[in-house]
Amino acid sequence: MKKILIALFVFPLFAASQNPIEDSLFIHKIAVNILSSDAAYNNLHYLTKNIGDRLSGSPQTYLAEQWGAQTMEDAGADNVIMQECMVPHWVRGGTDNATIIYKDKNSNQQKYALHILALGNSVGTGISGLHQPLMRVNNFDDLEAKKAEVRGKIIFYNCPFDDTLINTFAAYGKNVIYRTSGADRAAKYGAVGVIVRSMSNSPGNYPHTGSLHYNDSTKQIPAAALGLDDVKKLDTLFDENIPVACSMFTYGRMLPDTIAHNVIGELKGTEHPEQIITVGGHLDSWDPAEGANDDGTGIVQSIEVLRVLKALNYQPKHTIQFVLFANEENGTRGAKMYADEAKRNNEQHIFALESDAGGFTPRGFYFDVSDNTSMKKINSWKSLFTPYYGDRFQTGEAGADVGYLTQTPQAGLAPDSQRYFFIHHAATDIFENVDIREMKLGAINMAALIYLVDKYGL
Amino acid sequence: MKKILIALFVFPLFAASQNPIEDSLFIHKIAVNILSSDAAYNNLHYLTKNIGDRLSGSPQTYLAEQWGAQTMEDAGADNVIMQECMVPHWVRGGTDNATIIYKDKNSNQQKYALHILALGNSVGTGISGLHQPLMRVNNFDDLEAKKAEVRGKIIFYNCPFDDTLINTFAAYGKNVIYRTSGADRAAKYGAVGVIVRSMSNSPGNYPHTGSLHYNDSTKQIPAAALGLDDVKKLDTLFDENIPVACSMFTYGRMLPDTIAHNVIGELKGTEHPEQIITVGGHLDSWDPAEGANDDGTGIVQSIEVLRVLKALNYQPKHTIQFVLFANEENGTRGAKMYADEAKRNNEQHIFALESDAGGFTPRGFYFDVSDNTSMKKINSWKSLFTPYYGDRFQTGEAGADVGYLTQTPQAGLAPDSQRYFFIHHAATDIFENVDIREMKLGAINMAALIYLVDKYGL
Repeated sequence: MKKILIALFVFPLFAASQNPIEDSLFIHKIAVNILSSDAAYNNLHYLTKNIGDRLSGSPQTYLAEQWGAQTMEDAGADNVIMQECMVPHWVRGGTDNATIIYKDKNSNQQKYALHILALGNSVGTGISGLHQPLMRVNNFDDLEAKKAEVRGKIIFYNCPFDDTLINTFAAYGKNVIYRTSGADRAAKYGAVGVIVRSMSNSPGNYPHTGSLHYNDSTKQIPAAALGLDDVKKLDTLFDENIPVACSMFTYGRMLPDTIAHNVIGELKGTEHPEQIITVGGHLDSWDPAEGANDDGTGIVQSIEVLRVLKALNYQPKHTIQFVLFANEENGTRGAKMYADEAKRNNEQHIFALESDAGGFTPRGFYFDVSDNTSMKKINSWKSLFTPYYGDRFQTGEAGADVGYLTQTPQAGLAPDSQRYFFIHHAATDIFENVDIREMKLGAINMAALIYLVDKYGL
Repeated sequence: MKKILIALFVFPLFAASQNPIEDSLFIHKIAVNILSSDAAYNNLHYLTKNIGDRLSGSPQTYLAEQWGAQTMEDAGADNVIMQECMVPHWVRGGTDNATIIYKDKNSNQQKYALHILALGNSVGTGISGLHQPLMRVNNFDDLEAKKAEVRGKIIFYNCPFDDTLINTFAAYGKNVIYRTSGADRAAKYGAVGVIVRSMSNSPGNYPHTGSLHYNDSTKQIPAAALGLDDVKKLDTLFDENIPVACSMFTYGRMLPDTIAHNVIGELKGTEHPEQIITVGGHLDSWDPAEGANDDGTGIVQSIEVLRVLKALNYQPKHTIQFVLFANEENGTRGAKMYADEAKRNNEQHIFALESDAGGFTPRGFYFDVSDNTSMKKINSWKSLFTPYYGDRFQTGEAGADVGYLTQTPQAGLAPDSQRYFFIHHAATDIFENVDIREMKLGAINMAALIYLVDKYGL
């Protein structure tokens, strides 16, 4: 009975200390402002259509940094900091392509062009290319079982996306290891190249790139991603045990590290300027498209939080830093630098929020908050998010960038995930595949959370 | 205290009578089956790409009926009933077009083509067209204020979609009266034609059609919808008080009523075959596109519920009717016939579920259930829907078709509404604007609800 009584008392305590009517009215103002404004549309349009893809080290990255600084200044930032960091500088170096050669039923030689896209950080085949037998394996177990046959081959990892998982990030989490480590694992047995089935559940023929990691101990071999229509084509051949040879051309190479910046807009705190709340996304993107959902929308939403708080003349108690992180995609060097500097300067980071799961209609947030009292406080705000569809509060990883602030309570916006792996790192990640209202709804929920954390602390 | 005790007892009572583990396992099987199956994709693709738009009375309607009957038979229906009804037969009759004529700053005459789309049920201008001054009014109040100027004009209703409403159906509900009644209201003051700003919040230039209704008392004048880019163009002229003339050509006309059918697939009940549960959407669609989200997805989801229950060898206690309703768009004659026949035959309809709000990612359901005990029972199932994102249970209208079963507890699938008025009755309502996983998630939630209602009653 005691527990029940405590529970009954806890809620009114929070409710009393946190004026729910005032808060819901202010959040409504946030919503009306964001939904009525053209800023989010214009910002995303400019970033995707006038700047475009922005892989670390590319000229567009620097245009994006300048744009980000200017846009946050225009949105009302008290100041904008360019925090320098060194980032990997991988370049694609040319147009990836591959052709398979096989014999049809009448023993006539057939050629078929595969639409491949080299994986980020991958070495290239160079202009002479690879011309080797292609060997299909279903997964690493299959690779191990057939390791004696691997030498001299190009390995095709054909591990399908698990469509039965409701949260598509769970399916991605299961398979991404073939992208990150498939080259290494195959090189160990003498493979000369790797083609990976894209981590996607969508129809069409879009290879999805993304970074791989080489160990120091194995030979670095070229690796590329393949779209699902081409996977089907390969399956029809391998299912009939038809020998397939492959010519593969990729040109990726790693240049020396280069300079990039976290672009940090600040609203100075009026009561605790030394305590920092972070809101951010990443400014860099992969190169096959426009980095619209990954992570243009996170950038635009973060700037939208700044813009709306300023437009509503909100005076934050704490300093809020709006961070456009550098180099999330192939290094997270921006996030590391941000966390390192925070540590070096003994900064007090009280909360960090990231949006890097696409600009789709929001469901809620993932919270990574170790303190129970803080989590209870957060949960007491839940109903304030219900009108904006952001009230699904779960525990989980907040995001790759804020994750480096290991001691800081953090959250990640959780949009609906169904469409994410249609666009992720693929040619489909364009402005047209963002619904502006869905993105704005995410920004509304983000702004509401920042407002509540700033007002009531954690 | 008594109340609390009752509350504590009610939940376990439901929980005990409704095996939550067995139920969650069965619903998981439903999810895995639907997410692994190509049926939903193939069905929607066939309906949209091979049959296409299907306005009542059009040849495609009959192809769609045949397809629906065959598809439900293939999905395992015990029998398929073709329930005949008479439907209005409106035809567009030609390619709608309009041109505005005005003078620019240098007094040179300019022409500009408007992309219009006649409203359903509208009379046409005929080949001689209308050639009259165009007059802008912001709303009906504005029309009343300027009624003396209306005679002989084409009235342009320019009432913007309310972007600040989170649920876009609320914004639609506010403005749709300009489409349904704008012609009548303007005709009363002598207007000769009407152009209505489309009920949409999307960028681009897509006129959204939909039905209008004429009163018997006023002259029937032609009416058409206008896309938002053209609205902007008109606004630039009217804002500067530039006189605008308009030539408008539409060819709509109403032919005599014709025959259509509700296509009803049945799974016969094993315990209470005389008690009927209805699941459905509408088979007809507007003509500018493919009726993909309106209501191809509702049709495909309903058939998917049938297919999955059969595939999992579920033996329903009650008879489940899967109804592809005729003529929702411009008459709801199918729904009327279904309800009339139910009454005439003294059928016991215990529950009806409709999907007609698009195939977007589900949020939950709107329930129209007058009985408190039933609603409590439904609410006790909520957590079973949480893994499939369908646990937002609200009270509200279930749908235009099942709404005619006035005595029957009913529900409507409530998908996220953000993108609906991008596609609604416009050229954008095509297969490519449906995300198959989102549509499948909706079907999973529908199947789960039907399973629970069938198993436990209401």
